[in-house]
This record gives sequence, C-alpha cells and structure tokens, in this order.
Amino acid sequence: MKGSLNIVGLGPGAPGQITGEVEFALMAATDIVGYGPYVERAATPGAVLHASDNRVELERAHHALDLAAAGGRVVVASSGDPGVFAMAAAVFEALETRPEDHGLDIHVLPGVTAMLAAAARVGAPLGHDFCALNLSDNLKPWALIEKRLRLAAEADFAMAFYNPRSTARPHQFETALAVLRAACGPSRLIVFARAVGGADERIEVTTLGEAKAEMADMRTLVIVGSSATRRVGRFVYTPRSAP
Amino acid sequence: MKGSLNIVGLGPGAPGQITGEVEFALMAATDIVGYGPYVERAATPGAVLHASDNRVELERAHHALDLAAAGGRVVVASSGDPGVFAMAAAVFEALETRPEDHGLDIHVLPGVTAMLAAAARVGAPLGHDFCALNLSDNLKPWALIEKRLRLAAEADFAMAFYNPRSTARPHQFETALAVLRAACGPSRLIVFARAVGGADERIEVTTLGEAKAEMADMRTLVIVGSSATRRVGRFVYTPRSAP
Repeated sequence: MKGSLNIVGLGPGAPGQITGEVEFALMAATDIVGYGPYVERAATPGAVLHASDNRVELERAHHALDLAAAGGRVVVASSGDPGVFAMAAAVFEALETRPEDHGLDIHVLPGVTAMLAAAARVGAPLGHDFCALNLSDNLKPWALIEKRLRLAAEADFAMAFYNPRSTARPHQFETALAVLRAACGPSRLIVFARAVGGADERIEVTTLGEAKAEMADMRTLVIVGSSATRRVGRFVYTPRSAP
Repeated sequence: MKGSLNIVGLGPGAPGQITGEVEFALMAATDIVGYGPYVERAATPGAVLHASDNRVELERAHHALDLAAAGGRVVVASSGDPGVFAMAAAVFEALETRPEDHGLDIHVLPGVTAMLAAAARVGAPLGHDFCALNLSDNLKPWALIEKRLRLAAEADFAMAFYNPRSTARPHQFETALAVLRAACGPSRLIVFARAVGGADERIEVTTLGEAKAEMADMRTLVIVGSSATRRVGRFVYTPRSAP
C-alpha cells in the first residue's frame, strides 16, 4: 500500500502562527522528517521522528519519499512556508528522478513564511510590490545575487532577504549592503528581524547608512524598504500608492 | 479608556489555513471591520460587524482607528496576509495623519497570503528567488508596472501577480502578458489559481504562449515561473539552484 507525503510549513516559530490543517497533518503522521530543530517543534506522540542535519535537503527528501512509498503517512516539516527557500522544492527535485513515485499522494500545506511574520512585527514594510531573495550562494553564483540586488533596487521593490549571513561566508552580506547603499542611498530603511516569534526575538530598525553586517546571522530575516518606505510612530510601512 | 486594534489575515479561504492567534483575536473582538466578504468569513457571535465596499480602504482604516480610540477591541480583517496588498498599509497611512493615536495598542497578525496557497496547490513554483506585484493601476501608473515586469524578467525572478485583471481595466493584463511573452519567451510556465481553498477553486497551468487574458479575473492569483521552472508529474516547481 502506498502512503502519503505532506510537505508542511510550521510558521515562523510562535505556536499561534501555525495553521489548523498543518496541526492536523502532524497529528495523523506516522513519520516526521526534517531539519533537527523543526522536527522537534513538529513532534507528536504518535510519530517517529527523523531529524537530520542542515544542508542535506535532497537526501532528506529521498528519505521522506522512501517512507511514503513504503506506506507511511509522512510529514516533511519546514519552518515558515515549505515553498519559500525550504523543503518543497527539494522534494520535487528528488521526485523528478523517481518516476515510479509520481503517483504518490503528495500535498504541500502552506504556512506563514518568515518575511510575513517579520513584516507584521514592524508594521507593513511589504505593503507595496516586493521581492524575496535567498542571499546564500550555496546553490547559485554570488554574481547572480548581486545582479538581482541591482535590478530589484532599480525596480524600487521592497526586498526581503532569507539566509543573509553565515559564519561560512561572513563577508558577502557586507558586500550586499554596499551594493544596496550605492543603489538606494544611506537613508533607506532596513529591518533586522531575528528569531521572530521565539523567546530570543530581536528586532532592529535602522538605515542602510547605519547598518552593520553583524546585525544579521542565519536566523535573521532582513527587509530593505523601497524609496517610499517610512516610519509612522513605532511602525515601518510602505504606502500602497506609488507616484 | 483606549482600546486595541488587531490587523489580521484570514488566510486564502480554507478554514484550515487560518492561524490560531487570528482565531483568538476574532473571538475576543468587539468590532470586526473590513471588506464585506471578509467580514462575513471573520464573523463571531460577540462582535459587531462593520462591512464596507471594495476600494474604500482608507476610510475603513479611519473607522477602525476611531472604534479603537473609543475603547473597542477592534479587528481589521483581510484575506490572506494583511501586509501584502491588503489593509495593514492602509491603517498605517491613516495613522500617519492621527498623531494622537500613535500610542494605540496596534498589532499586525500575519496570515497565509494568496501566492503561498496558490504555489502550494501546484507544487513549489516560488522555490527560488521571486517577486510579488499588484497589477492594478489604481494606485500607481501603468508605466511603472511595465517597468517592473521587464526588470523582474531580467532578474529571472519567478513572479506572483495580485489583482491581475478587473472588468474596469480588461486590456491591461493582455499588455502585461505581451510584455512577459517578449521578455521570457512563449514556453515559460504560467499558473492561474482562482479562489484557492474555496468551493469554486480552479487551477490552470499553461505557458505564456498559450495563456489568454480571460483566464484571470480579480479573484485569480497568477504565477509566472522563472527560466528554470518546470513540471514534474502533475506538479510545477522551481529548483533551489541556479547555474
């Protein structure tokens, strides 16, 4: 008997920001597969937990497909939304090489992705057109990232950055800030939102001129405003209209 | 006594895609303010419903701030996420002109925005860098929309379009498709996701060459893939890596 595979998003971290259908899928799971800290968050009494290390997404995806093909009710758990820089794309990449599993019962259950939770904490900085970029160059050349930053600035998008900075590549985010400073000017607003919804949440709002690369790590979601983004009281927002 | 204002996202429509904290805010509300169909979805036995027409966002925002300033526990309800082409930006716009209300207890509670739900229904088309554009020119010049489409294509972003087409401006989406066809070629994948999660949900996957403007209306979320977006079985996904 073939099983099923639900690729779910746990939301950014706060228990109140998970959806009902994801909670239901977790309760019904025989197996929960994912990066260690996310599997811990997703754990239910009835499921076998399959925690794995960071950066082994494709291996993890094959493991989940194996379990589902063997009859399990498998959940692959990501933080945030599974379709935004998370496990859903990795599962379909794995599926591409396994035509015998194309008929499996596979569903993606969306979640509140980090940029939406971070934006909500400070106001509405993504209230007009925006883009979302993964700043890690593990899976794409750095030159492409710089090109996208320049074009996004030219389009006057607000921008959300996932994985802005890691210990393995501490200097690249400094380069990204320099590219943005040149393109957007020093007074452009920037938001550093770390561990949103967690006990160790930390939010900083500053300008590109004042921003330091050290304000970000791999748990930080960074938002750079458009030319129209501004403060009102303790909030930051981007007006709906553009001239 | 001053009240509170929660600006919440109801998710795309399916009851299982609302978060717990939004449900809680609705249960505690004395007043629920929003566009008619969303107020209907958000209704609770204890709250007074203040439904308004489409396109009166700023007026609605002032009304909600008035109710909160008078002591109400007010919820402003949007579909999807309140920070993405929805009510949060309108509330901060209104707040900007009311310094006496800057101290109000205001929170934004995020939700699953339409593009994430639409992406999940077809696979993971937003699995790599992407942008989100509102195609309505109610609040910005059409020339800016075309410019952003061209730059987004040059950046090779996947793209999500909100409000792609209305009866008031039926020809603009045809122009948008022509701009995209020229920039991305006819074989580029495009997804039309109408009323995701609703009883009348309709999903179509085709190419820019085959796409017709009539496939979209104001309830459709449109996703155009990047150059790498492809099909695997019945799914559409964008690989995590770029060459």
